[in-house]
Amino acid sequence: MSAVGGAGRAEVVGLGLVGSSVALALRAAGWSVSGRDVDEERARRAVELGVVERVEADPEATIVFVATPVSEIAGVARSVLAARPGDSRLVVTDVGGVKSRVVAAVEDPRFVGGHPMAGSEQEGPDGADPDLFVGATWVLTPTKATDPEAFRRVRSVVGTLGADVVELEPERHDALVAIVSHLPHLAAANLMSLAADASTEHAVLLRLAAGGFRDMTRIAAGDPRIWPDIFRDNADAVLEALDDLRARLDEARRILVEKDRDALVALLERARSARRNLPPRAPRPESVVECRLPVPDRPGVLAEVTTVLGALGANIRDLEIAHSAEGERGVLVLVVDADDAEVVRAALVGRGYRPSFRALA
Amino acid sequence: MSAVGGAGRAEVVGLGLVGSSVALALRAAGWSVSGRDVDEERARRAVELGVVERVEADPEATIVFVATPVSEIAGVARSVLAARPGDSRLVVTDVGGVKSRVVAAVEDPRFVGGHPMAGSEQEGPDGADPDLFVGATWVLTPTKATDPEAFRRVRSVVGTLGADVVELEPERHDALVAIVSHLPHLAAANLMSLAADASTEHAVLLRLAAGGFRDMTRIAAGDPRIWPDIFRDNADAVLEALDDLRARLDEARRILVEKDRDALVALLERARSARRNLPPRAPRPESVVECRLPVPDRPGVLAEVTTVLGALGANIRDLEIAHSAEGERGVLVLVVDADDAEVVRAALVGRGYRPSFRALA
Repeated sequence: MSAVGGAGRAEVVGLGLVGSSVALALRAAGWSVSGRDVDEERARRAVELGVVERVEADPEATIVFVATPVSEIAGVARSVLAARPGDSRLVVTDVGGVKSRVVAAVEDPRFVGGHPMAGSEQEGPDGADPDLFVGATWVLTPTKATDPEAFRRVRSVVGTLGADVVELEPERHDALVAIVSHLPHLAAANLMSLAADASTEHAVLLRLAAGGFRDMTRIAAGDPRIWPDIFRDNADAVLEALDDLRARLDEARRILVEKDRDALVALLERARSARRNLPPRAPRPESVVECRLPVPDRPGVLAEVTTVLGALGANIRDLEIAHSAEGERGVLVLVVDADDAEVVRAALVGRGYRPSFRALA
Repeated sequence: MSAVGGAGRAEVVGLGLVGSSVALALRAAGWSVSGRDVDEERARRAVELGVVERVEADPEATIVFVATPVSEIAGVARSVLAARPGDSRLVVTDVGGVKSRVVAAVEDPRFVGGHPMAGSEQEGPDGADPDLFVGATWVLTPTKATDPEAFRRVRSVVGTLGADVVELEPERHDALVAIVSHLPHLAAANLMSLAADASTEHAVLLRLAAGGFRDMTRIAAGDPRIWPDIFRDNADAVLEALDDLRARLDEARRILVEKDRDALVALLERARSARRNLPPRAPRPESVVECRLPVPDRPGVLAEVTTVLGALGANIRDLEIAHSAEGERGVLVLVVDADDAEVVRAALVGRGYRPSFRALA
């Protein structure tokens, strides 16, 4: 373990945002890091910024992170492994958003599939951040074919970058991200297109499109370039989730046609309960509480509330603005430490707010 | 006009949040306001709070706002109008979220359908706010059968409450809210239920469910009680929108099965372009600019940014937190006055942020 836990040699292939951030985080943890990218200008920039020390394939690296586009991961991983057959000092992992195909295609006990749930709107080495993975969930997908020692080493290194490792089977990972990421993206894109196509009076539509619609379609505004590979490589899981949604919308159609009020109420109540039990982002739900604060939908209020809590030394673990379904009001949803709940309540009430608190655990 | 524009007599039937806020806003504009509610305790509370002056049907009222649940609007409006046949001093309007059925059911030239796009999480007279409608869009739906003078009077009164009136045919209103409100609500509820049903490992799902999923399902957390009436009364328009979405998801299925990359890219690009042209909430898009600010997804940053802008005297017209698709980073989207853009840019760059600006007009 000392060889990987301390100052070993690592290589990162693909110096986009995630790869560059892995490289910086590894350097901060004491690793000697080389890197490569098909874009030579990008590789040069990574050296210039100190993201990597050298641009080369490092035959002495004990861990290689493959951070290329999803479509190239398997090929790169196989070639890195093939160059050092039987060398058990080497482990290879990747950061792709889809896992089954890559894991099946590599078939080497020294390969461990991975997916850090972290990213940003920045791009390339210039956006790199050594703290990108601190507190982030990092999925690893070992299989029966994986050398347990290789998995242990990758898990250990990822842990030193600050991430929380979650171990999942590749197929399970793909099924879950299909549900919480890929299908919602597809639904948002289609809702947005539908609205754009439906209205010849675009200005009127904009005036009626309130917070709920904005929230639902926000992810459709993101960079579409990463999605074609994801939908190709995770087509089976996305299709399964999509067919599930289609069946549910067929049932919704039946409910509307037959005016089946009981079934409608049951659907909405179930969704509401599930959503309210989805905490904003709380690693230890028992240690935090949710504070809901009706506010005028004016950002001046945000500054006041965040400043009041800052002055108390209360840590805001998360914050959401739940715009009301319509109009200019909203609810500020804060997640604060349970220990701070009473002082936060007192301070907010003292300023004329009407906070309500509930446990998340 | 002086009879309605000045200190006339008004009546509000239904003293929930919107009705009570209408009453308070009318009082603030100089009206003498009586009110009624089937819940006598609520009516008593409205008098106690000064929301209305009297609990009674006022035979002298020149304008009556019907703010009952959607299913009772037509009956109440008809009975108010029937009690004063031919009395042209009387106009009646409502605040329901669906318009065609109500407007068709009332059939009196003195009735004008209405829908203020405003609300809050508060309930009843205790949540009433005389400024609820300031700057809000208020749809009015006159028809060929509507007395133009009645429409003119309702529009004038609604304008004095601070709202911006948008005139739409009832069917057009219903078709648009089906697209931007009712269908998205149905989709969010089904996506949330799907995720809740799919995962036996609920804790793992929660860890993978990042900002995008939270944004998409947020509206499903709202109070479901208002929805059954809305889906019943607007079933035709919602069905039309739902069938449109179902056809689009069928096409998405084809794209996934056939791996039609070009069609997928076209879909995602179109949605992205439409969403990026949906401004957060800008009454005069030419006077404001959007500032996108990549930030660590930590609320301490919010306090800093809002405080910096406050110190500059720059007005934040709107603010959204676009959580990244995954992980702990996000983008703060601020809408600021165009005149302030340069000082805001300088101040943020000076603090180490990397803002980008774009026009919304």
